[in-house]
Amino acid sequence: MTPEFYMQLAYDEAKKAAAADEVPIGAVVVDMKDGKVVSAAHNLSEHSGNASDHAEMLALRQACEKLGTNRLRGMELYVTLEPCTMCAAAISFMRIEKLYIGAEDKKGGGVLNGVKFYDAPTCHHRPQVISGIMSEECSQLLKDFFAKKRKKA
Amino acid sequence: MTPEFYMQLAYDEAKKAAAADEVPIGAVVVDMKDGKVVSAAHNLSEHSGNASDHAEMLALRQACEKLGTNRLRGMELYVTLEPCTMCAAAISFMRIEKLYIGAEDKKGGGVLNGVKFYDAPTCHHRPQVISGIMSEECSQLLKDFFAKKRKKA
Repeated sequence: MTPEFYMQLAYDEAKKAAAADEVPIGAVVVDMKDGKVVSAAHNLSEHSGNASDHAEMLALRQACEKLGTNRLRGMELYVTLEPCTMCAAAISFMRIEKLYIGAEDKKGGGVLNGVKFYDAPTCHHRPQVISGIMSEECSQLLKDFFAKKRKKA
Repeated sequence: MTPEFYMQLAYDEAKKAAAADEVPIGAVVVDMKDGKVVSAAHNLSEHSGNASDHAEMLALRQACEKLGTNRLRGMELYVTLEPCTMCAAAISFMRIEKLYIGAEDKKGGGVLNGVKFYDAPTCHHRPQVISGIMSEECSQLLKDFFAKKRKKA
């Protein structure tokens, strides 16, 4: 399967978030061994009552639960938007091996932008980062969501 | 109540973690309005099967659940060790007003050390930071824990 195949799954998750009036971001954890999807989640932070319920955090947590481990070695994470600083660090703690990013997030990202956590000396596990997978589509989904929000306001 | 009073509660939580063979770090959320403790938690990341179950994340999550909100405005957080990058960002997202830190964490901290998240342009809410509360005791608890671990190994 191509990276685009899995990013499409993350994108489908993001669309579910939009339908639930959540910021449309989706994430998928894949086992590199057999290409199977281990978990898939979308952002819930507005309605769950927990501002840390980002798509990545939820997908990571679900994968840990499913696999009965707190270290996701040999796993890759696909996410439609560049992870924020919190999620970037969580991805490192969980030992994710490869991180595929859809759109960049200049305002809130912590991987390619901002604190660039994986370049910091306080980062003790650095996933391989591949960015720009379906970036136009992932970015457009967010733009459409916020344009609609502004129209309503 | 003094900051030391609440840090002592966080320290007591950290001791519970040590007793459960978890890295001894504790955290307490306090409502600034009336000084009441809203939540208290200790690190569970080794045994919960979730590497993001840091004391701060758990205390924040519990406070959100208890108060039915995902924004902890008017709340302060006491934590025995400088928050890591993940927790530093979560504390910002949750809108914690004041952050009291026990010991500094030069290797893994994300507030006073490392990425210093609150100084980054991608940080959109900066809590007031007060550090060095009971730092000796908080640091000693960690040193004793790891010395014991090394002895066992």
